[in-house]
Amino acid sequence: MGGTVLYFDDLSVGQAFDSASRKISAADIKQFAREYDPQPFHLDEEAAADTIFGGLAASGWHTAAVTMRLIVDSVTLAGGVIGAAAEVTWPRPTRPGDTLQVTSTILELIPSRSKPDRGIVKLRCETRNQHDDVVQDLKATLVVYRRPVPTGA
Amino acid sequence: MGGTVLYFDDLSVGQAFDSASRKISAADIKQFAREYDPQPFHLDEEAAADTIFGGLAASGWHTAAVTMRLIVDSVTLAGGVIGAAAEVTWPRPTRPGDTLQVTSTILELIPSRSKPDRGIVKLRCETRNQHDDVVQDLKATLVVYRRPVPTGA
Repeated sequence: MGGTVLYFDDLSVGQAFDSASRKISAADIKQFAREYDPQPFHLDEEAAADTIFGGLAASGWHTAAVTMRLIVDSVTLAGGVIGAAAEVTWPRPTRPGDTLQVTSTILELIPSRSKPDRGIVKLRCETRNQHDDVVQDLKATLVVYRRPVPTGA
Repeated sequence: MGGTVLYFDDLSVGQAFDSASRKISAADIKQFAREYDPQPFHLDEEAAADTIFGGLAASGWHTAAVTMRLIVDSVTLAGGVIGAAAEVTWPRPTRPGDTLQVTSTILELIPSRSKPDRGIVKLRCETRNQHDDVVQDLKATLVVYRRPVPTGA
């Protein structure tokens, strides 16, 4: 699908988009954590060993941010990927050296009643590691533009 | 509350925690976007002007990450702030120069049946800008440890 710009009208329920993959290093995990989630299990291998995670783990918000990057590059919507809401679960953490990949599937297409130039798209985005384990399950509510109607028609 | 470590048993429904505040610059918005959400409305003022946002706006995931930082520093749970799930809406975007602040309120306390050393806490975290507008409304599901019982009792 790379490069094809998709309008609301081009989408169908069940349609799926596979992202590229991205490897997350221990340094990536610590850098994100220092800025946004400075807790021992995200910052330091030794300190993490004695926590609920039993070892260094990425912040869930880091997994979410990397997932967004993979979605933006694979779900090429006209006007961009514009989120209004999200429901996220993190069944297991992203670990140092994990390679993440996202499959996005269209769950629902809801034309807007009040704004005829757009619709709401419910998109499920499953982020998996190299063992095919789900590290994040996201249900996103997106605003997507309809294909413009020629004026004067 | 700063510095006090709180166990599940120390929490009550309705209890609230106010965070410090953090200012977000245009440079911050663009830096996050380059790495995690490289779309025109998050990267460039001029390109953003013609989009649904009508000007530069932070990625929702950037607002979420900054919110997490403010929560970690203000909700001082024993064992840390450990999220299992989150429901997020972004009623309006974070703009360059906005100062964000988070109020976290306990909605629900659910002792674990299977794991007596912990419980589930539902925490609502409202992120507001300097105009008191909500930029993010988060309902987080956290795992929180119970106060350890002396052994041999």
